[in-house]
Amino acid sequence: MKAVRIHEYNKPLSLDEVNKPRVSGPYDIVVRIRGAGVCRTDLHIIEGVWKDVLNPKLPFTIGHENVGIIEEKGNAVDWLDVGDQVILHPYITCRHCRACRSGNDMHCPYGKFPGLDGTDGGYAEYLRTSAFSAIKIPKGIDIIPMAPLADAGITAYHAVKKISQYLYPGSIVGVIGVGGLGHIGIQALKAITPARVIAIDISEEKTKLAKELGADEVVIAGKDSGVSDVLKLTDNIGVDAIIDFVGEHSTPQNALRMIRKGGIYSIVGYGGEFKNSTLDFINREIMVVGNLVGTYNELSELVTLYVQNKVKLKVKTFPLEEANSALEELKAGRILGRAVLVPS
Amino acid sequence: MKAVRIHEYNKPLSLDEVNKPRVSGPYDIVVRIRGAGVCRTDLHIIEGVWKDVLNPKLPFTIGHENVGIIEEKGNAVDWLDVGDQVILHPYITCRHCRACRSGNDMHCPYGKFPGLDGTDGGYAEYLRTSAFSAIKIPKGIDIIPMAPLADAGITAYHAVKKISQYLYPGSIVGVIGVGGLGHIGIQALKAITPARVIAIDISEEKTKLAKELGADEVVIAGKDSGVSDVLKLTDNIGVDAIIDFVGEHSTPQNALRMIRKGGIYSIVGYGGEFKNSTLDFINREIMVVGNLVGTYNELSELVTLYVQNKVKLKVKTFPLEEANSALEELKAGRILGRAVLVPS
Amino acid sequence: MKAVRIHEYNKPLSLDEVNKPRVSGPYDIVVRIRGAGVCRTDLHIIEGVWKDVLNPKLPFTIGHENVGIIEEKGNAVDWLDVGDQVILHPYITCRHCRACRSGNDMHCPYGKFPGLDGTDGGYAEYLRTSAFSAIKIPKGIDIIPMAPLADAGITAYHAVKKISQYLYPGSIVGVIGVGGLGHIGIQALKAITPARVIAIDISEEKTKLAKELGADEVVIAGKDSGVSDVLKLTDNIGVDAIIDFVGEHSTPQNALRMIRKGGIYSIVGYGGEFKNSTLDFINREIMVVGNLVGTYNELSELVTLYVQNKVKLKVKTFPLEEANSALEELKAGRILGRAVLVPS
Amino acid sequence: MKAVRIHEYNKPLSLDEVNKPRVSGPYDIVVRIRGAGVCRTDLHIIEGVWKDVLNPKLPFTIGHENVGIIEEKGNAVDWLDVGDQVILHPYITCRHCRACRSGNDMHCPYGKFPGLDGTDGGYAEYLRTSAFSAIKIPKGIDIIPMAPLADAGITAYHAVKKISQYLYPGSIVGVIGVGGLGHIGIQALKAITPARVIAIDISEEKTKLAKELGADEVVIAGKDSGVSDVLKLTDNIGVDAIIDFVGEHSTPQNALRMIRKGGIYSIVGYGGEFKNSTLDFINREIMVVGNLVGTYNELSELVTLYVQNKVKLKVKTFPLEEANSALEELKAGRILGRAVLVPS
Repeated sequence: MKAVRIHEYNKPLSLDEVNKPRVSGPYDIVVRIRGAGVCRTDLHIIEGVWKDVLNPKLPFTIGHENVGIIEEKGNAVDWLDVGDQVILHPYITCRHCRACRSGNDMHCPYGKFPGLDGTDGGYAEYLRTSAFSAIKIPKGIDIIPMAPLADAGITAYHAVKKISQYLYPGSIVGVIGVGGLGHIGIQALKAITPARVIAIDISEEKTKLAKELGADEVVIAGKDSGVSDVLKLTDNIGVDAIIDFVGEHSTPQNALRMIRKGGIYSIVGYGGEFKNSTLDFINREIMVVGNLVGTYNELSELVTLYVQNKVKLKVKTFPLEEANSALEELKAGRILGRAVLVPS
Repeated sequence: MKAVRIHEYNKPLSLDEVNKPRVSGPYDIVVRIRGAGVCRTDLHIIEGVWKDVLNPKLPFTIGHENVGIIEEKGNAVDWLDVGDQVILHPYITCRHCRACRSGNDMHCPYGKFPGLDGTDGGYAEYLRTSAFSAIKIPKGIDIIPMAPLADAGITAYHAVKKISQYLYPGSIVGVIGVGGLGHIGIQALKAITPARVIAIDISEEKTKLAKELGADEVVIAGKDSGVSDVLKLTDNIGVDAIIDFVGEHSTPQNALRMIRKGGIYSIVGYGGEFKNSTLDFINREIMVVGNLVGTYNELSELVTLYVQNKVKLKVKTFPLEEANSALEELKAGRILGRAVLVPS
Repeated sequence: MKAVRIHEYNKPLSLDEVNKPRVSGPYDIVVRIRGAGVCRTDLHIIEGVWKDVLNPKLPFTIGHENVGIIEEKGNAVDWLDVGDQVILHPYITCRHCRACRSGNDMHCPYGKFPGLDGTDGGYAEYLRTSAFSAIKIPKGIDIIPMAPLADAGITAYHAVKKISQYLYPGSIVGVIGVGGLGHIGIQALKAITPARVIAIDISEEKTKLAKELGADEVVIAGKDSGVSDVLKLTDNIGVDAIIDFVGEHSTPQNALRMIRKGGIYSIVGYGGEFKNSTLDFINREIMVVGNLVGTYNELSELVTLYVQNKVKLKVKTFPLEEANSALEELKAGRILGRAVLVPS
Repeated sequence: MKAVRIHEYNKPLSLDEVNKPRVSGPYDIVVRIRGAGVCRTDLHIIEGVWKDVLNPKLPFTIGHENVGIIEEKGNAVDWLDVGDQVILHPYITCRHCRACRSGNDMHCPYGKFPGLDGTDGGYAEYLRTSAFSAIKIPKGIDIIPMAPLADAGITAYHAVKKISQYLYPGSIVGVIGVGGLGHIGIQALKAITPARVIAIDISEEKTKLAKELGADEVVIAGKDSGVSDVLKLTDNIGVDAIIDFVGEHSTPQNALRMIRKGGIYSIVGYGGEFKNSTLDFINREIMVVGNLVGTYNELSELVTLYVQNKVKLKVKTFPLEEANSALEELKAGRILGRAVLVPS
């Protein structure tokens, strides 16, 4: 089968012919890929950002945002059938550790992350994963445009859900970056919280998209990343929380200046550095939280919002063979919403 | 009356003769001070650390950790009597803003902070504050040694309470710094959570005190601030949470290395800088929280623990006139527990 | 001034001429009433339902759902002005007990409840209450139709908020009774939670109103109070939570049969009896919660939702003099939404 | 092998010779039983109380509180070994439903309950269950006396954990019934909450045990089930929460009278009926919660408390063959703590 693989850091990916995966364990499934989302993390993998953290063995197939149809299943999988269309939680978990048993799938210390840690991912015709990662999607729903929910979606949703307990009518949340994740984050905020949302982006086109998706206010980030405009919109008090889908360059420092006393700075995007005095931490009693993908149940909730039409996705498809072009367009900031690779 | 006041930054305090304060508003009280705790924040005030943040008008009387006896009260104070002995929450709040009405006293934007923001504090014979700041202590209990509960105590207790929702039998919490706040924090952790506690300090004497107060394990912070020893005690996984009562020098960076995936770094001490990559924030999904004193209800809970003998205080008293000596001993790390000034 | 007062149980109210109230304490305000909501609780007061619980001294002015304009204020009220238009939280609280300091206004043991416990209420031209009960409404907003927020509104909102922590996309909540409280409860559910809402009422007109206000499904309660229809709509699993705005006759028993394993039965309406085996409590692990009005902060949040047009009120006004007619129409089930008395 | 089985309701159990169970699915384990706790639920099964709820097919082996040694394991069980000593969570869950994926093991709709629903339980020499139900206990710890943790223990612990979020220093919790569950509940309260505990029982011997295990106060339930004594101990305010391990006869009605405004009545014992007016539910804003066993993670936490010596068990062992005698002694109230059957 065809698979798009990384052989070397900072080089284009290669389109290889490899063996189709087969079920080995009792809870394995093999899925015929119908769509694989193209993520900024894929760029970071190619750049070697994850090398020191995960040190994956090259080459491997990337792609961690997958939808498809079950082609083969292990003999203990009695709640799913061959032919079912599914969306796949990106992480393969052990099911018996405390994290798995608390619903914190992402904190399973024994898990595998196809497309990221050296396990083959979904930029391919077929993918092997665990049946415990699959959520069945009813027949009649087009799954290709749902691919971005599997990682961009749940990461944004997870960040929203973590702060939702602090929000009430009158709360204001800033969203920095209206890209693949941000455009879902805005909708998730409007769907599950009563907060007013201020979207912040450097692109006018993206702030327009933000408005269409429900942002109450938008700010075009100028030379101060939008700090002064956000303060103006909040009577110089600042927002209750910022979700930062950028996390690079001067964004972390500026985001900090946008939050109020007792506020929350929630980090999703990465690549940059965060700095603050301990005095400011205590004097304003602020909180900084990291977000690592979301849980299986969160993916299930997000699929519900999508089916209820409360979260819509902006998707641009590319043939699987054009993975490198899709990545280049993402890098250049030319993707509105999310790119999805579709095997022919 | 006598009052110990700051006239100039980085100079010794001056013992002045000033007018005794009088009740002015209907909810005011004037308290004859029986004890005023000596806090590292008092050193920071003198050093000018708070100058840029609060810009207090000099001179003023410092001291924000006070106990005493009600001498005079406003005509609307019907739940307290002249002669009652009281411990005083350090902040004077408006009672009508959302923060006050949620119990988040410290986030009241209209409050005054005697001894810190230019309002006269408790290094004096008398103090004027609000009746809403007072908690009545039953007759027969010696209030002088309770003074440190009013700020050191509730700040430590507040930090413990904020993380307590994440702790269960099997959780491990590290406590950095067994000083005025830390020695209360350790006891609060043991009193209200099931966590195992590892206390970390550079002084062997203080780690001994930690053991006596209930710490399950102690680590003497060597050249890596105790990181390697903490990791050894936790099978290289790290602790669930660190409460950092130091917050200066290399402590923030080292504390980060002590926490596990999904862990919490809780900041109480200040003076230094915190730095981390956004990648580490998301990859380990960690959380960093600041702590600003505690609430009135938390002070009330802590008084209950003290009366139940679940929190004991290590206190060394000084005459009010020897405020400067007490501050010097604190600076030199020679106070075991907390210093308290007692007017004659 | 004119005041509508109860002199005897189970008799019509009497329109009396009484003295206008004056400010006495430093935090008092006197409000010129612009609107006073007519509540089922007013009927229950007249019926003597509250006699054994509160034993109020007769006669007194009823009416606990009030909006108006500040006419006079105590000398310590520095955050409100004469002429401000305000909505009034129904309870006068002490501000110094633990409940008040936690934001649980309704649990203050020292409070007074104008219009309910013998303290004069708002079926009158003027009302004396505490400045701490008032929320300022910006000029230019018509406050008369907001009166029902002050009790019907926050009670419904409070019930919704208490269960909101258990709701996620995919959750289903049943609402029994689309009257004064229920029609607000439906909107609050849609505004602050992602739950699907099933509204249940015996009146077709009221289920139509429910649909207009956002209910996803409606059920006309027939001989089994709607149990079979609710089960049909939930694949025989039952709803995650029921909010019961009736609480009388067979409703409590039938409501119990509508909830799923682990479900919540939330009681707002009263007058009837609740019964269940302890075996069912443990076998289905269900929870039953009572709701007593809401907090001041909740009223403030609800006002925000009203101003944002997320909660709309269905109101029918009556002159103050026609209080008895308004009560009769309410009793007969002829009020769609809520009746409000308006002094001329 | 030997197994003690129910053939007919309201008859003594029968000691049968049956086939030893064998592993069939990939995640099965067969455990050689070392101890099987004797539970009041076993009495209720024999009495037919569960017949209408679960309708189990007779005969089957009862016993749902088991410890033992792994004798055989399925080929997908890679985190446990033959020879490991284990304590068994009583429920066999599907691992893929929302409840399982949230950690709410008991709410899995596809689960099996050995010893209760017709699936063979642990009053036998061997038991087949799921590897996902097993918690490994380190060598060197005597597991026989730990059996009661597996059901009595986690049910009591679960009830404590559910109310623990509402408790703070100064809170008071009443515990009704110092039997198999109650004597663990008291210790769990003291281990993980700061609450003061009042234990209530009709037996002086059991109240003495309660004192030894950490109860702060004890009440011998007289003709009013202890209501007047509990009120006396709480200044006529009532306790913050009651955990009722009896749930029969007049206990539910009396327990209600022991709780304060805003209080919680938590039901664990069953057999009786609960009744209350909806007016009282709303006027006192109380909450009633059922408890159904506990989760796997809770069992793991409780094992930690046991190993830390914070929860001790009072156990009386009987040979497996004497199951009927053990049940009779339990029925007669002659077991102090918990009976455990031990196969020879």
